[in-house]
Amino acid sequence: VSEQKLKPDELAKEVLGGNRRLLARALTHIENESDGSAELLNALYPKTGNAYVVGFTGSPGAGKSTLVDRVAMNLVRRGKKVAVLAVDPSSPFTGGAILGDRVRMSQASDESSIFIRSMASRGALGGLGPKTAEMIFALDAVGFDFILLETVGVGQGEVEVVRTCDTVVLVLVPGMGDSVQALKAGILEIADVFVINKADYDGADRLEKELLSMLGLRQNAVFDPPIVRTVAVENRGIDETVEAMEKHRAYASESGERETRRESFLRQAFNIELDSALRDAFDKTVDEKLMLKLEKDLLERKGDPRSLARSLVATLKLK
Amino acid sequence: VSEQKLKPDELAKEVLGGNRRLLARALTHIENESDGSAELLNALYPKTGNAYVVGFTGSPGAGKSTLVDRVAMNLVRRGKKVAVLAVDPSSPFTGGAILGDRVRMSQASDESSIFIRSMASRGALGGLGPKTAEMIFALDAVGFDFILLETVGVGQGEVEVVRTCDTVVLVLVPGMGDSVQALKAGILEIADVFVINKADYDGADRLEKELLSMLGLRQNAVFDPPIVRTVAVENRGIDETVEAMEKHRAYASESGERETRRESFLRQAFNIELDSALRDAFDKTVDEKLMLKLEKDLLERKGDPRSLARSLVATLKLK
Repeated sequence: VSEQKLKPDELAKEVLGGNRRLLARALTHIENESDGSAELLNALYPKTGNAYVVGFTGSPGAGKSTLVDRVAMNLVRRGKKVAVLAVDPSSPFTGGAILGDRVRMSQASDESSIFIRSMASRGALGGLGPKTAEMIFALDAVGFDFILLETVGVGQGEVEVVRTCDTVVLVLVPGMGDSVQALKAGILEIADVFVINKADYDGADRLEKELLSMLGLRQNAVFDPPIVRTVAVENRGIDETVEAMEKHRAYASESGERETRRESFLRQAFNIELDSALRDAFDKTVDEKLMLKLEKDLLERKGDPRSLARSLVATLKLK
Repeated sequence: VSEQKLKPDELAKEVLGGNRRLLARALTHIENESDGSAELLNALYPKTGNAYVVGFTGSPGAGKSTLVDRVAMNLVRRGKKVAVLAVDPSSPFTGGAILGDRVRMSQASDESSIFIRSMASRGALGGLGPKTAEMIFALDAVGFDFILLETVGVGQGEVEVVRTCDTVVLVLVPGMGDSVQALKAGILEIADVFVINKADYDGADRLEKELLSMLGLRQNAVFDPPIVRTVAVENRGIDETVEAMEKHRAYASESGERETRRESFLRQAFNIELDSALRDAFDKTVDEKLMLKLEKDLLERKGDPRSLARSLVATLKLK
């Protein structure tokens, strides 16, 4: 059979057998929810649960991409198979040129130990799509030891996804105007490892001092997140970053934290899918005329969104 | 009757009559979806549609809060009634002390032309909550001329909300490491007004040049977003910011863009409420035993989230 005509189970078999070009195609199917992607995922999911998933987050400009690339190469030299899943910052303005090198890397051969995938942004707006979890499942199933998820972790949805990674690395830079105080609430709390990147810049000492003092205020903390200094572009501090990740990994495995997070990750993915399935079922059964009437009321400011939505759902028989 | 015992319609009447202390309480009811909040909203919604809603967004540390405060004061001096709705950056670490001054302002008397409300963050994670639209409805209904919505607009959900504001102001600062290229994709596209704050810092010229060159690449642009330089802490450039907002307001009214965005805003609010109503209805009818069985399959990696969710919804009779 030609590759174009592969059935989902055949595609799954090829992908599980190590075909990287077809892996890229499988990820696209999953991302687009195209026909057969449900069967594909079904075939892959039972093989998941072995990869170690590390979320990298931080402000734009913190140097996350470079750091993630260096960490990935470091892990490869340690004999690991590594996948990188990155939010594609391309836009009508920036053109996505930043990822030029990465695209080349991702076209490496089947034997290579590294695989890089940029996630298409949802609409024009970027951000982690609802399919992030499923893409992680696919990469996990095909046998990557590490999956490095890279994201601009300042939005609600993104923080929710990243926090259920096995280990969360927060990348900061000195003197960027965003002192620790200005960081989005919640970001500090979810970090297991702090990386001060561009540590050769002025202000690294002050940033570390601020971090330590903030961390000292934490109630009930059971794990002291390591603080690592890096200059990713010069490959400095990368060993230490990997060791800090491993330190948290060991703690998380022993304490049961790893299992807890994995369950949260799966439940979260399930909830996203459940909401989407409910909405699809609703769209198929809703009375179009009633819907148009309610929309009219909404736009004419006769009924507020909440009460219109509730009254609409109340007309459904759910059992 | 004592204030504690006010019924929703009585509370609505007081709030519409200008009682600011009760407005604060009404907003809390709405935010928490407490009993009676649906009736309250019902009473307020028909009075909406008059306020001009301006979304302020940008990276942490860009000086948004200061800028928003200055713009608010400037509008008040022009005889306008202004409400500020800000994401509260408080967290177990930062303690929310940043908002100290604002809290004092928000306790101003009924006669004051300014009202400041911090939105509680959802969970520990911050971010715009699903109730943002409803809080805007309430502020709109009670007669504020301007509602300034301030947010760290780097997450998907937040961008979605902000983009449907009547006017979107993107606040940038020079030399913060986040050059225009590093900005999250999608943010530039939704800006109607660019403010270069801290314009006395090095790099303001370069930032403006970068912005102009990016904007030049835009296809089909019908409105040239003004670029304004401010030093908000010194109250410089605030008149110009307000004028730039008004310039976009005039364009949006004439071109029909204003109506389009308002419809998007309402539809978006309706969709959020519809998903939530569907989920509530589902939770009330779902077979608990089946749910537990599926969860077990999920955690034991026997069934993936998407197929489990679909099979669960398929057991429902929706009509």
